[in-house]
Amino acid sequence: MNIYDISKKAGVSIATVSRVLNNSSKVSEQTRRKVLAVMKENSYTPNAFARSLGLNSMHTVGIMCADSSDVYLAQAIYYLERELRNNGYASMLCCTGYQLEEKEKYLQLLLSRNVDAIFFVGSNFVEDTDDRNNYLYTTANRIPIFLLNGHIAAPNIYSVLCDDYQAILDITNEVLRTGSHQPIYLYRSLSYSGRRKLAGFTDACLEHGLSFEEERSFLCPVSLDNTREFLSSLEANGVVFDSVIAADDELAAGAVKYALASGKSIPGQIQITGYNNSMFSTCSTPEITTIDNRVEFMCTTAVSLLMQAFQHKSIPAKTTFSGTVVHRQTTRPF
Amino acid sequence: MNIYDISKKAGVSIATVSRVLNNSSKVSEQTRRKVLAVMKENSYTPNAFARSLGLNSMHTVGIMCADSSDVYLAQAIYYLERELRNNGYASMLCCTGYQLEEKEKYLQLLLSRNVDAIFFVGSNFVEDTDDRNNYLYTTANRIPIFLLNGHIAAPNIYSVLCDDYQAILDITNEVLRTGSHQPIYLYRSLSYSGRRKLAGFTDACLEHGLSFEEERSFLCPVSLDNTREFLSSLEANGVVFDSVIAADDELAAGAVKYALASGKSIPGQIQITGYNNSMFSTCSTPEITTIDNRVEFMCTTAVSLLMQAFQHKSIPAKTTFSGTVVHRQTTRPF
Repeated sequence: MNIYDISKKAGVSIATVSRVLNNSSKVSEQTRRKVLAVMKENSYTPNAFARSLGLNSMHTVGIMCADSSDVYLAQAIYYLERELRNNGYASMLCCTGYQLEEKEKYLQLLLSRNVDAIFFVGSNFVEDTDDRNNYLYTTANRIPIFLLNGHIAAPNIYSVLCDDYQAILDITNEVLRTGSHQPIYLYRSLSYSGRRKLAGFTDACLEHGLSFEEERSFLCPVSLDNTREFLSSLEANGVVFDSVIAADDELAAGAVKYALASGKSIPGQIQITGYNNSMFSTCSTPEITTIDNRVEFMCTTAVSLLMQAFQHKSIPAKTTFSGTVVHRQTTRPF
Repeated sequence: MNIYDISKKAGVSIATVSRVLNNSSKVSEQTRRKVLAVMKENSYTPNAFARSLGLNSMHTVGIMCADSSDVYLAQAIYYLERELRNNGYASMLCCTGYQLEEKEKYLQLLLSRNVDAIFFVGSNFVEDTDDRNNYLYTTANRIPIFLLNGHIAAPNIYSVLCDDYQAILDITNEVLRTGSHQPIYLYRSLSYSGRRKLAGFTDACLEHGLSFEEERSFLCPVSLDNTREFLSSLEANGVVFDSVIAADDELAAGAVKYALASGKSIPGQIQITGYNNSMFSTCSTPEITTIDNRVEFMCTTAVSLLMQAFQHKSIPAKTTFSGTVVHRQTTRPF
């Protein structure tokens, strides 16, 4: 449905349609009502209008994330915006929280602004079932979409992600080889990336012949104080652990707070590892051994792929890269 | 200059102008050239075009900041985007760094997208001279602009800011009243807000009869390690200090690293205070006494003022609110 269709259906000229949209006083009330009725019948919006007039690219790209104040996501937004800007594209930011209904609702805010593509930052955008991922499929019917740290196989959906499984496998192996026998794993979600990380932890434990008769992985409340209290209560409930593999640096920083509060030496009595190589890992004392999952590389790669797609080049549906262990003070020398 | 003017000057119908913009094959090459020449002569852009068709509001607001990965700025962006979205506005994010040339250049990216208003987050957007603030004045000629944590008196420019002077005066007074006699002040810029903070520190020292024969305020390199090293070198150079008043939490966290590394007890031998009540202050051990400068309140207030301005209500040019000292573990009981 475009301006020509509207003018045809309403039996008026294109100029008249323009005048109606423009609130011009040169249109009779009767004509105005007729044109508006046709627009309404055909779910016609000014943006679709702009698009039909050849304004089909606003040179604007959407960035969706759960929470832009999250340290890791804030980094990703920073790099994406910088790379897009360097390519002449503006960035439209939209934060959705973690609920599917909100994601679907706020996605419309970006789509109604005619963005040329959307980056979904964080694996929480990949839902469990095809049905719940429908919002991604429908969006990809219109514009290319990129999942950063998530993956789903579907047309016009591109993934750029760190090999989280391998990274957690590596760091857990290091902790187990330097004398820890009772590792626990802390996480705050089992998103796509969260499940891959947990699998890496589990496989490393199995490689070292550790039993899983007792629970070794725990959904842990976020915020430093809550993590500290959670670990204290685990200990009070008889869970024995000599190392904490955390799914992100904030959880690891909470574990450091726990060790300091309960008088455990780090890394002598307890080893702790994080993930993301964020400021949580350097701000803590002792500084935290963590995984550098290359957020800058991920973002520059994703924008570079998008620019190639805009030039009608073929780009890979999935690009995976490896992370690296960054050795600091919360683990024993490896 | 709008679609009617273009069609008139080119001597063609509005539909023809639309077809040219739409790359329609139904226009002869000769006509296309004529229309494009008229557009070029009149510096006509598709956005101005869209605007002339009554698309004068994209319901989009720009957010400019130096660096969206900065912890404090990331918080502000988060709250601004949330409030704008709740009011049906999309957020266009643009990071500019700290150089005037970059600010001016990237501002165009927002203006060319027809944003309805712009939030400039951080007092670094207020330059020293009228001449260098010209980019703000010209922008305010077109749309309302908001300075968050900055102030400048000019038409259509609105400021929302914490009383940084009073907050630093208060926190310095507390440190001096609890036994410190040799305070130093660390900052990383003398922006509008930076100068206000420094004045608060200086006045508190003067109130306590401290001399300024020796230097008491220092421009300090950022990043935790650099701050730690900077304080060590100050000490090595004979600067005596028993308390560190920092202009932000990251500097304060660096001061904590320095005290821990040099075996000084906190707050016994050295008191340390931060500013912003950010995660740097809670992530450190001991946790840092700081100023809550109410970033959420600042952002919700600014968006609320903007919505009132959009409804043609009169709003104050300057809104100032007070901060609060948040007492934690790096200062003695007050």
